[in-house]
Amino acid sequence: MVEYAQPLDGVFTALGDPTRRAILSRLRKGEATVTEVAAPFDMSLNAVSKHLKVLERAGLIRRTRVGREHRLALDAAPMDRAARWIIDYQEFWESKLDRMEALLRQRRKNS
Amino acid sequence: MVEYAQPLDGVFTALGDPTRRAILSRLRKGEATVTEVAAPFDMSLNAVSKHLKVLERAGLIRRTRVGREHRLALDAAPMDRAARWIIDYQEFWESKLDRMEALLRQRRKNS
Repeated sequence: MVEYAQPLDGVFTALGDPTRRAILSRLRKGEATVTEVAAPFDMSLNAVSKHLKVLERAGLIRRTRVGREHRLALDAAPMDRAARWIIDYQEFWESKLDRMEALLRQRRKNS
Repeated sequence: MVEYAQPLDGVFTALGDPTRRAILSRLRKGEATVTEVAAPFDMSLNAVSKHLKVLERAGLIRRTRVGREHRLALDAAPMDRAARWIIDYQEFWESKLDRMEALLRQRRKNS
């Protein structure tokens, strides 16, 4: 199993795929079995399993066994750090936008 | 060049690597040449260039040529969608989000 240098690596990498984001959206509605999660996708169960492993490695889903069934649940907590990382940059471009707006206002005033 | 199915794929994938996040951190301080960006990393210029391409493809950096030099600048705007995607999962970790908001308020107060 690939080990990530930093937890953020796992979360961002996991979110960088539309199938994996769709799986998270599905689990948002509630727990589901692997078969239920795989049903809407036009891909093999094996391919879906690989995506599930990436999500598990990132800590975004939890798997429990109930008898023979594997049940999956969303754990959005690791997104917290990812959100904070991005928000920190949002401040960067917001302040840039503010400066740009001020500049535009200044220019309009002068013209 | 790999084409992403959705813009979010490119942004999240780009952020899923510590070197690429470090490059963005460097560019946050201001524009820089490729050589300047590559300097702190213990890797070949070729390896750094590959990371730069991933960041460009995601729209997170812009490259301009000044004579022979390639200058790089951060463009954090594509992170906006990524931030919104993550924040949408807030109901799963609302209390954490409250803490994040408090953190942001604190930061604004201090700045």
